[in-house]
Amino acid sequence: MTNKDEKWMKLALEIAEHGAGHVSPNPMVGCVIISAEGKKIGQGYHERYGQAHAEQNAVDDIADPDLLKNATVYVTLEPCAHQGNTPPCCEMLATLPIDRVVVAMEDPTPKVAGKGIEYLRNHDITVDVGVLEEEAKRLNEFFLYHQAFNRPFVTLKIAQTLDGYIAAPDGNSEWITGTQSRTLVHEWRSRYDAVMVGRNTALLDNPRLTVRHVEGRQPHRIVIDGPLDLPDDLNLFTDQYEENTIVLTHNEEKFTNEADPMLSILKSDYFRGKTLLIDEKEGHTDLKKSLIELGKLPLTSILVEGGQNLNSALLSEQLVDKVECFIAPKMLGGGTKSVLGVGINRMEEVMEFREVKWRQVGQDLLFTGYF
Amino acid sequence: MTNKDEKWMKLALEIAEHGAGHVSPNPMVGCVIISAEGKKIGQGYHERYGQAHAEQNAVDDIADPDLLKNATVYVTLEPCAHQGNTPPCCEMLATLPIDRVVVAMEDPTPKVAGKGIEYLRNHDITVDVGVLEEEAKRLNEFFLYHQAFNRPFVTLKIAQTLDGYIAAPDGNSEWITGTQSRTLVHEWRSRYDAVMVGRNTALLDNPRLTVRHVEGRQPHRIVIDGPLDLPDDLNLFTDQYEENTIVLTHNEEKFTNEADPMLSILKSDYFRGKTLLIDEKEGHTDLKKSLIELGKLPLTSILVEGGQNLNSALLSEQLVDKVECFIAPKMLGGGTKSVLGVGINRMEEVMEFREVKWRQVGQDLLFTGYF
Repeated sequence: MTNKDEKWMKLALEIAEHGAGHVSPNPMVGCVIISAEGKKIGQGYHERYGQAHAEQNAVDDIADPDLLKNATVYVTLEPCAHQGNTPPCCEMLATLPIDRVVVAMEDPTPKVAGKGIEYLRNHDITVDVGVLEEEAKRLNEFFLYHQAFNRPFVTLKIAQTLDGYIAAPDGNSEWITGTQSRTLVHEWRSRYDAVMVGRNTALLDNPRLTVRHVEGRQPHRIVIDGPLDLPDDLNLFTDQYEENTIVLTHNEEKFTNEADPMLSILKSDYFRGKTLLIDEKEGHTDLKKSLIELGKLPLTSILVEGGQNLNSALLSEQLVDKVECFIAPKMLGGGTKSVLGVGINRMEEVMEFREVKWRQVGQDLLFTGYF
Repeated sequence: MTNKDEKWMKLALEIAEHGAGHVSPNPMVGCVIISAEGKKIGQGYHERYGQAHAEQNAVDDIADPDLLKNATVYVTLEPCAHQGNTPPCCEMLATLPIDRVVVAMEDPTPKVAGKGIEYLRNHDITVDVGVLEEEAKRLNEFFLYHQAFNRPFVTLKIAQTLDGYIAAPDGNSEWITGTQSRTLVHEWRSRYDAVMVGRNTALLDNPRLTVRHVEGRQPHRIVIDGPLDLPDDLNLFTDQYEENTIVLTHNEEKFTNEADPMLSILKSDYFRGKTLLIDEKEGHTDLKKSLIELGKLPLTSILVEGGQNLNSALLSEQLVDKVECFIAPKMLGGGTKSVLGVGINRMEEVMEFREVKWRQVGQDLLFTGYF
């Protein structure tokens, strides 16, 4: 591994990120091709699910094919070894007069899992693996998590006062955080497969959970409605993105008897607005089973924008992978707590985070931490 | 005002700060003397209450008195014009062959209030006022506040989890924050005139509230004990700093009848351990009147290390001037809230801070804001 390798891989990672929100359930991948003279001759990324892979886009970007002689290909994920929507990238690369392929990380997908690297090596191409591997893993944390655990990566978003309140005593929560923080949440929505709220939030705030204020893909919107009796005039069920809405319920009777077309499960190449029946657990829709079902759709990532109940329930069941907590420089001294009731009694049981980051966003502070 | 003026005044402010914790109820003052050739020839600061002022120490620091010819004196506060524990500094300076005095800010003390500057000007010395005035005011925020409002400047220190809890449900609070944060609190204790806790904290945590882990002056320790029945074996009443402890009570009967020597008000040049009788307000010791009494001692600054009750009561009565809130990257999801019950109902009433700063301290985040 050289400084040059890191430099070009860093560029490939930056390019890859342009696919955020558009390639799921695929990973984001970026590719940069460097000539024997050390000049960048092509670059590309996986732009949209079902379309060309990063390697093909980078090759297509090259003006003069002669430049490929003894070139080096930098790619943020092992080239695929299987026929999917596109032909295997390892075979395509092996037909080129290149010398070397540098890969940030192996693709853990069983269909690939080292086979792409092996194929290239068997065709006399030097393959180096592991350049900026940590960064590559972080880039695709949703994809990798879903691959490993068959459920979506769950991020809890909290917007609270310094003293930990997400709404005033009268229930109003507009606005605790500043515009920059709220804009950032819209960016996140465009990168997560889905946004999730609980029944109370859907009912009291009637949120849209759409991407506004920034350019970006609209996420699926999940609402947990155990009794399946939310009013059908909520924004989530009536706006132009209504087919993005997924309802989770444990009310089997209502779910199976209802003739409402909203309740029919629609199957398509991808998936559309639907209601899923989930087992009950202690009077509530089972959250762990909900995530497993959502993982099958497949959803690889969920941004939870819930209230106290959903936040606390997910934390209690250890179903949260990451917390993004905005803290506004304000105090309410009362109201709705961000989290209340997770079953902890003693300091020894405190939930600790790893990879903690604090950064200022406008006048607010943003905490990021992983469990 | 020139860049050179700011440079030397900045040095004078830095030097002044060495008096922190030792000069109260006086302000911190620093002085730097620059020769006609632009070389620093002397510096000094007000080191301890009752001892020499900064100007005298800076003059005494000069190796060769001839260097004073046409020199410039930088001083962070207007030279005093009155006979106190030391002679008036303006008179002392006027006897020197100096050309110019640069002053960061006027001294608002009625005995000075421009008279020092006027005296110098009347003795043909050029006086420029206002260089780094904001910084000078911030340096002496305790002194200036006490001068203006006749009560101590009150800082609320909070050490909480991300979700705003200061103790686990079982009451234990050791330790939410990391060692760096806790060490910083000990530094603060050495700079504030007093540390204050409520009855519950004194009883449950039996704190010492002393300066450990760092070098520094021990603060007075104030405990609000309305019924005046805290056990007399608490650390606050028995350790080597017991005479630093001040008890506030509204139990007049017990206060006047008790023969306990702890209850006699001791008067001395400064002041020693004592109990103060304060009016009652709605069943509690009146906090506003408490601060007025403490201001008379005189205490210019109090660091409140209280629990939920004292925090909330002080905030409710708008008696807090500054909040220093440590946030640990942990969640408890339950326990004792940092603040609960300040009478706010609607978002429009939210308490907002000005001059907000967020900074990382070890793994924790420190919020600083003024009301």
